[in-house]
Amino acid sequence: VPERYGAVIYSLGTELTEGIIQDAHGRFLASLLTGWGVRVEKICQLRDAPETTEEVLRDSQKRRLLIFTGGLGPTSDDITREVIAEASRCNLEFRRELWESIRRTFDLSKAEANKRQAYIPEGFTVLPNEWGTAPGFWGETDGTVYVALPGPPRELREMCDRYLGPLLREHVHVSPKQFTAVTTFLIPESVLEDACRRNMVEGVEWRTRVEPFRIHLYIDGKEEKAREAFLGRLQGDMGVELVRKGAVEPAELLLEEAARRGRTVAVAESCTGGMIGEMITRVPGSSQSFWGSAVVYADAAKQRVLGVGEETIRRYGAVSEETAGEMARGVLELSEADTAAAVTGVAGPGGGSEEKPVGTVWIAVCSAGGKATAYSFAFGNRREIVRRRSVTAALIMMEMEMKGNIRVDRLDSWHYS
Amino acid sequence: VPERYGAVIYSLGTELTEGIIQDAHGRFLASLLTGWGVRVEKICQLRDAPETTEEVLRDSQKRRLLIFTGGLGPTSDDITREVIAEASRCNLEFRRELWESIRRTFDLSKAEANKRQAYIPEGFTVLPNEWGTAPGFWGETDGTVYVALPGPPRELREMCDRYLGPLLREHVHVSPKQFTAVTTFLIPESVLEDACRRNMVEGVEWRTRVEPFRIHLYIDGKEEKAREAFLGRLQGDMGVELVRKGAVEPAELLLEEAARRGRTVAVAESCTGGMIGEMITRVPGSSQSFWGSAVVYADAAKQRVLGVGEETIRRYGAVSEETAGEMARGVLELSEADTAAAVTGVAGPGGGSEEKPVGTVWIAVCSAGGKATAYSFAFGNRREIVRRRSVTAALIMMEMEMKGNIRVDRLDSWHYS
Repeated sequence: VPERYGAVIYSLGTELTEGIIQDAHGRFLASLLTGWGVRVEKICQLRDAPETTEEVLRDSQKRRLLIFTGGLGPTSDDITREVIAEASRCNLEFRRELWESIRRTFDLSKAEANKRQAYIPEGFTVLPNEWGTAPGFWGETDGTVYVALPGPPRELREMCDRYLGPLLREHVHVSPKQFTAVTTFLIPESVLEDACRRNMVEGVEWRTRVEPFRIHLYIDGKEEKAREAFLGRLQGDMGVELVRKGAVEPAELLLEEAARRGRTVAVAESCTGGMIGEMITRVPGSSQSFWGSAVVYADAAKQRVLGVGEETIRRYGAVSEETAGEMARGVLELSEADTAAAVTGVAGPGGGSEEKPVGTVWIAVCSAGGKATAYSFAFGNRREIVRRRSVTAALIMMEMEMKGNIRVDRLDSWHYS
Repeated sequence: VPERYGAVIYSLGTELTEGIIQDAHGRFLASLLTGWGVRVEKICQLRDAPETTEEVLRDSQKRRLLIFTGGLGPTSDDITREVIAEASRCNLEFRRELWESIRRTFDLSKAEANKRQAYIPEGFTVLPNEWGTAPGFWGETDGTVYVALPGPPRELREMCDRYLGPLLREHVHVSPKQFTAVTTFLIPESVLEDACRRNMVEGVEWRTRVEPFRIHLYIDGKEEKAREAFLGRLQGDMGVELVRKGAVEPAELLLEEAARRGRTVAVAESCTGGMIGEMITRVPGSSQSFWGSAVVYADAAKQRVLGVGEETIRRYGAVSEETAGEMARGVLELSEADTAAAVTGVAGPGGGSEEKPVGTVWIAVCSAGGKATAYSFAFGNRREIVRRRSVTAALIMMEMEMKGNIRVDRLDSWHYS
């Protein structure tokens, strides 16, 4: 076995060294690279300034994989191109095809400022960026491999998935860990960690990657059978709906199920304020199956748009099983969709009471011709977390409802949040 | 005026370079130091390994302030003491008084393992840690200042407040930086950069920080008058609605205006799919002024919920001035709110035509008893960008409408996106 490859990760930007923003790319890339068998020796955040070139020049003498994020924009303080050109001793050259592709993205009259982005070091290879304007690139000189990737988080993630893995396998000859990708919903990081320990199978290890609406779990291990056994145990323990194989999103899972069955969905949202609609319509082509959402924030809106009874709200409150149920039935009737969900809760920071503290959320789902199933969750006391968990739970519950297998006792085991 | 002091911040630990945990100390210290007028040149996370000593040794040749966090514990992979001793060429020496104080903190029989912590470089000064076990220390050799602080977040914060500030003021002679924070909307980074150059005022510099819905602009400069003059010129050039003083969000600006006037708002969304409602309800207390949003994604929803004419959609299309206007009036009537906005557009990737390419978005705003003002934008060809720009434009247009100063010719100058 060859010694594991050494790497340095650079994030460039004065907003990092001035503490204006937190670098998250370093950790993200470090975790990826470690998983791929690369030894990360240094993660650093540097300024858009001359001493950065010196630093990289020094590192290039002995390091073997230098990965840069950010600093690829059109302005003069985006210096990654120049830094790499100097360290690799490859002059920047203008790439006509790159310039044409940048011009296609922009209004011609405004593209001029972006011309800088069409220059990359001689002999280097372009890594196209379909998710933004700044292309990446990579190249090798004197045994040092340079990889430049854009800074916006989504672009970075997509480009790592698309290019970085294959590039390292082909050119750097890393020996990647073999793993199974899993996505988990609604399970806090520490609870997931305990569950992994509890369900441990010999010959596997795990790593996680936390995102706003989900946690990715990577199960490492040479034997696929052992990885599958571990996944099976985890699913049995934590709920098969909350631990899914692959890199998936709840809105996509719902829309796939709807498309497969030729069904349409509609939602009614109070505390989530439109976030469920936003997550569904983020998926291109969602108009096939999505009718819309009634964002009924005010009580008057719940009554007027969805026909929730004034009496219901007075008697049980806006956050109640009864109101959630009437909201779901109301939007189902209004939309004539096949399946609907409704969410009403106390997102905080205000509005909580002893009986219904901040974090109390009622979610109801129902289908044409059927009864509503409602369930109350306690989603903690932070507004954004309460909202995100509500969105995730509603999407998964709609998917279960559509599959005909939603049961309150199953939801009872989602006791993680 | 002496040149601003240069600094490097180190966080030590293999759990950092393997991506297991996120370093947050770098940003925390960078922000503190920047505010104190220290120029942070590098923030880095290093392994507990021999190359870390080399790295610090190299940096100590020319940097003037080296700050270390973590690695001060009792175990052999806590290497900060050794690293600093080697870089500063000051041998570690046993400090009896430090040992006594560590022993007082611990059960005597268990303190032995902590004996390592009583060794610090010769000639260095102890920084007592009342909040934990690992004391810090600092010293200067050959013009380089070394400061070692403990890793636990609370201990680090307390020690910075207590010792780091005074130490820098006395020994490093820092001078805090003066700046004006500005937020810009809908202006792409390269266009903003050009505008800054064009409107340059002597004695100021600028930095930017890009976020999904806005770009922060920091105007640095000693004279407040010069900073204000620069801001005034930028606002005159780019539009006073798109360049705002302070760190602000469009949803907050709208809600503040609504609260000030005791007005309520409602929205109707097609291509944004709930994102406007989501942005508004992200702000705690938004229920005071926000009625809700009709997310009418399907054409049937536009007709059924908002009373948009079937004829209107057939004749002008779902993405048109007429449909946007009827949606805005429809949601205003439904909600009885004071001001409403409606958004309908082609977010892509599908659905574009020659006449209405991807990125075409109509936004209409109107107030009770008034006429609708509608405007069409060309927001580029990427789905998420089109949606975000639509959200931002709709929020700002509602704020203008509420202030009574929305005019189509003003919108004409928002030609940036």
